[in-house]
Amino acid sequence: MTLRIIATGGTFDKHYDPLTGTLGFRDSVLPAALQRARMAQQGERREHRCVFEPLLALDSLDMRDEHRQHILQACQRAPEHQIVIVHGTDTMRDTAAVLGAAALQKTIVLTGAMVPYLIDDSDAFFNLGFACACAQLARSGVYIAMNGQLFDWDNVQKNRAQGCFEVLR
Amino acid sequence: MTLRIIATGGTFDKHYDPLTGTLGFRDSVLPAALQRARMAQQGERREHRCVFEPLLALDSLDMRDEHRQHILQACQRAPEHQIVIVHGTDTMRDTAAVLGAAALQKTIVLTGAMVPYLIDDSDAFFNLGFACACAQLARSGVYIAMNGQLFDWDNVQKNRAQGCFEVLR
Amino acid sequence: MTLRIIATGGTFDKHYDPLTGTLGFRDSVLPAALQRARMAQQGERREHRCVFEPLLALDSLDMRDEHRQHILQACQRAPEHQIVIVHGTDTMRDTAAVLGAAALQKTIVLTGAMVPYLIDDSDAFFNLGFACACAQLARSGVYIAMNGQLFDWDNVQKNRAQGCFEVLR
Amino acid sequence: MTLRIIATGGTFDKHYDPLTGTLGFRDSVLPAALQRARMAQQGERREHRCVFEPLLALDSLDMRDEHRQHILQACQRAPEHQIVIVHGTDTMRDTAAVLGAAALQKTIVLTGAMVPYLIDDSDAFFNLGFACACAQLARSGVYIAMNGQLFDWDNVQKNRAQGCFEVLR
Repeated sequence: MTLRIIATGGTFDKHYDPLTGTLGFRDSVLPAALQRARMAQQGERREHRCVFEPLLALDSLDMRDEHRQHILQACQRAPEHQIVIVHGTDTMRDTAAVLGAAALQKTIVLTGAMVPYLIDDSDAFFNLGFACACAQLARSGVYIAMNGQLFDWDNVQKNRAQGCFEVLR
Repeated sequence: MTLRIIATGGTFDKHYDPLTGTLGFRDSVLPAALQRARMAQQGERREHRCVFEPLLALDSLDMRDEHRQHILQACQRAPEHQIVIVHGTDTMRDTAAVLGAAALQKTIVLTGAMVPYLIDDSDAFFNLGFACACAQLARSGVYIAMNGQLFDWDNVQKNRAQGCFEVLR
Repeated sequence: MTLRIIATGGTFDKHYDPLTGTLGFRDSVLPAALQRARMAQQGERREHRCVFEPLLALDSLDMRDEHRQHILQACQRAPEHQIVIVHGTDTMRDTAAVLGAAALQKTIVLTGAMVPYLIDDSDAFFNLGFACACAQLARSGVYIAMNGQLFDWDNVQKNRAQGCFEVLR
Repeated sequence: MTLRIIATGGTFDKHYDPLTGTLGFRDSVLPAALQRARMAQQGERREHRCVFEPLLALDSLDMRDEHRQHILQACQRAPEHQIVIVHGTDTMRDTAAVLGAAALQKTIVLTGAMVPYLIDDSDAFFNLGFACACAQLARSGVYIAMNGQLFDWDNVQKNRAQGCFEVLR
């Protein structure tokens, strides 16, 4: 079984630019993170493999319908049935809704981070591990994996005051 | 649902002692790691909670039958049905075998790390996230979660030359 | 001999705020950094001690004349003759000029960082060590210590294209 | 002016080996550390440059007379007058005594770390910055730079109980 990991940007993947003093995008941190997680290791007895696809590098507040269609198409054309999408948290739910409505016969797990991978005390690497397990174990559907919890795409919201995700009802 | 996370020591939890120049055990890193992962956050809409139990602080090469019985008893007396055990990698399989033979009606996931949580480029935080998802999603049984893969307790071995876990057959 | 370390904000001391997704100020990182450097340790044979003064928490682009006077007054009233000022890099030279013109009989070293202390691959901790040595060893005067070099306050500029400090001539 | 930085091993430069679970030596961390400190940057207005020399990779308890002669020869043949030596803390004083007795007309600063550069909360990067400033500013002689203090080679000892360096008298 192979797991596809798609980068779309978001807080998870932000870098600090010393020349401008702002956070933005460069090459994704995901290849190094997957190496560090030993997900990228190949071996004859490895049952699970992963492939990485750098699709977008956007702040999720800048993500529009066309970008969401682009993500949907990436999920549709992927030969894998297990997909993790690293995405900004602000509109993760909107992208999940587009993917959920498409009802693909795949397990698609969106995750992200409250603090960038490269900043002290980041939740990113934990979330990536959590999401990779969910993509392997949950039945077909579209999910959001944040703060150690797996949410159905149509029963989740970001609690902006507390900086975490929670069920709607 | 509540997830119980049991520390038993192992590479995951080793600290560097500047006075002796060696790696050993102090207070577990797990409470801080769970806070960082936002697993420890409480909220009225939190469906999943986690409790932390510092049971042992041993190098897994020093773990004997009595320690494994101690871990088994901790799993038996836990009110939770979802348990993550942080354990050294060298004898993780032996402890998993003791727990597997007991056939508890719980999902018990052993995880650990190839590099301590507090050392650069550690896999620990990813593995913890991966294991927390597995404990929530896998059916009852005893598992080992390492390098982004979930293994049945009776079909796994540590490949010491490559520093990863793999299936037996 | 005692070294006074004065925080005024700047990139060095920026924290990531997960609720807003921006970099800003909270409690200074300097007390923890000095502990980590073992500068804060007390002992009967310690000849050098350090005191920490959290004076301002400003982006240096927001620093105005009144703030620079405030920093000057802090240097004047300090009983110590060795002072390190942690400051934003963009207007570090302007503050140095105000302090230089005052011609105090003290060694005052301004330092900062191109990448915040709490972000991966930061130069902050090195710069702090470099500046603490300069404050102990350089003769009275006002200096800027960045990228492993000590500059006189009236012969230095920030090269914004390369992200480093250099002499004027 | 050019600064020579000589690696000899020691705690500063230890790496964790995931296959053996022990701390040992691989390629020195110093080239990456100097890059991070922006010491390695070249520019037409850079007055200070640094060169790196990987001489030894030894635990300082394993360092014998022949190794100390080897370090002395490296200092003698170096064209630079400012030298930083990264060295284990346990016998740093012994090496400093060999170099001190040779009375070269150079400023030689030995530094090291109580916690390896690659381990959480390490003092290494601060010490490196501190030592690089001392080598540029102190008059000819042999020194030990640790815990934010510069010591003459013949008036310093490691306090093993507290994990810091202090004057003898």
